[in-house]
Amino acid sequence: MSPEPIPLRAPVRRADRARQVADVLRQQIHAGAFASSLPGEQELAAEFTVSRNTVRDALALLKDEGLIERAPRIGTHVARRKYDHGLDALLGLKETLRGHGEVHNEVRAATRVVPPLAVARKLRLEPGRQAVYIERLRWFGDLPLSLDLTYLVPDIGDEVITRDLETNDVFALIEQISGGPLGSADLALEAVTADAHSAANLQIPEGGALLLLERLTRLEDGRPVDLEYIRMRGDRITMRGSLTRPPERTDWRLI
Amino acid sequence: MSPEPIPLRAPVRRADRARQVADVLRQQIHAGAFASSLPGEQELAAEFTVSRNTVRDALALLKDEGLIERAPRIGTHVARRKYDHGLDALLGLKETLRGHGEVHNEVRAATRVVPPLAVARKLRLEPGRQAVYIERLRWFGDLPLSLDLTYLVPDIGDEVITRDLETNDVFALIEQISGGPLGSADLALEAVTADAHSAANLQIPEGGALLLLERLTRLEDGRPVDLEYIRMRGDRITMRGSLTRPPERTDWRLI
Repeated sequence: MSPEPIPLRAPVRRADRARQVADVLRQQIHAGAFASSLPGEQELAAEFTVSRNTVRDALALLKDEGLIERAPRIGTHVARRKYDHGLDALLGLKETLRGHGEVHNEVRAATRVVPPLAVARKLRLEPGRQAVYIERLRWFGDLPLSLDLTYLVPDIGDEVITRDLETNDVFALIEQISGGPLGSADLALEAVTADAHSAANLQIPEGGALLLLERLTRLEDGRPVDLEYIRMRGDRITMRGSLTRPPERTDWRLI
Repeated sequence: MSPEPIPLRAPVRRADRARQVADVLRQQIHAGAFASSLPGEQELAAEFTVSRNTVRDALALLKDEGLIERAPRIGTHVARRKYDHGLDALLGLKETLRGHGEVHNEVRAATRVVPPLAVARKLRLEPGRQAVYIERLRWFGDLPLSLDLTYLVPDIGDEVITRDLETNDVFALIEQISGGPLGSADLALEAVTADAHSAANLQIPEGGALLLLERLTRLEDGRPVDLEYIRMRGDRITMRGSLTRPPERTDWRLI
């Protein structure tokens, strides 16, 4: 009772072919395959065995993403590079971008708050107990990369906000203060469009794409100490990681 | 030379407070904290110690994300649930959603192609050598969840496209055909806005947020066999995972 072989089909619509081409070019741009300008339309058409019109549609998609710039007689240029943020290591932004340039944090808030119940529960605080709240706009050179809202347990947070928050990762400060390494974190990653106010802060158009990362971080002993809501510019950050198939099928789980 | 303690500051702008409230409510909605309707504005204002206007702004943000619906006298309801996709396990969509409902794949293409050079290199194919290309719109019940473009090495791909692609994950087919488990994968995850054609396929508004996952998957012996470009609906998929701080600081790397 083997299933019927399905007939072989190729994408027929130009929009489908353009998407195919755009996906491969995007990866090449991220990988630095083009010094600054992309090959001409004719060359790309030959490389992808598609029409020049399809190449133009593909380039239009990448232009809409803000990845390339196009001008008559000048050609197609890489508009911006994206920065890789590790998905499979617990690294702060500054650590992540070490060697690429300087991260500077604009501290918009650093104070004690009575956190909402849902936050208190995640940080295992009794209802009504205070937490420390930090809000930072994180700059990489003159580029705003992310807007971070951080809730910390008070015993660590009270000390964190006496430190230099403008140049340090919160992760590094927590490790200094707790005297041990961070243990683990739960991540939830979503794509959302930017509301007007977040867009203005991050200097992107309203409705631009954001990676929204919610991260609950624990010390080595398993105690949750840091709950963050991080909005990253979709046009500037790629999250990268490697993963391994778990050896025991029975161990797989919906997480 | 310890840094000056910075003054304690709380967010003063209503838009900032609304974002704070929205982030916590979003997490609660995902976690199923509200059966179907959210508490009233007054109750939320008390819970978050903010004004009712701030609560209204926060709910407007979540409404724009498509997460809730609001109507006078009816109140605020959860509009849709999101599905979790594992970040830290190599699971196909069907495996991931097992127990939640049926995944059905609309196969838009399944054919041999001469892949672009950049794809050939990733799959370690000689230039000009053919690969197998599969394009699927993946439905969860009557909901289109993702649009997947897949390149497979020919020795496995030729066999994959004789199988039932409409109900099977490609991962499961690769494992059946290769006779062994998958080994590992490299992921790159980005947030992009949907172009008109992808939006129409996924039944979201043009400009809606998409999670774009590029994934190169290897067999246990390390051979890359499967390169995918997956567009997931941002309003319907959350990528979740857990990670552990590597024990040796010197092992950290930018990935």
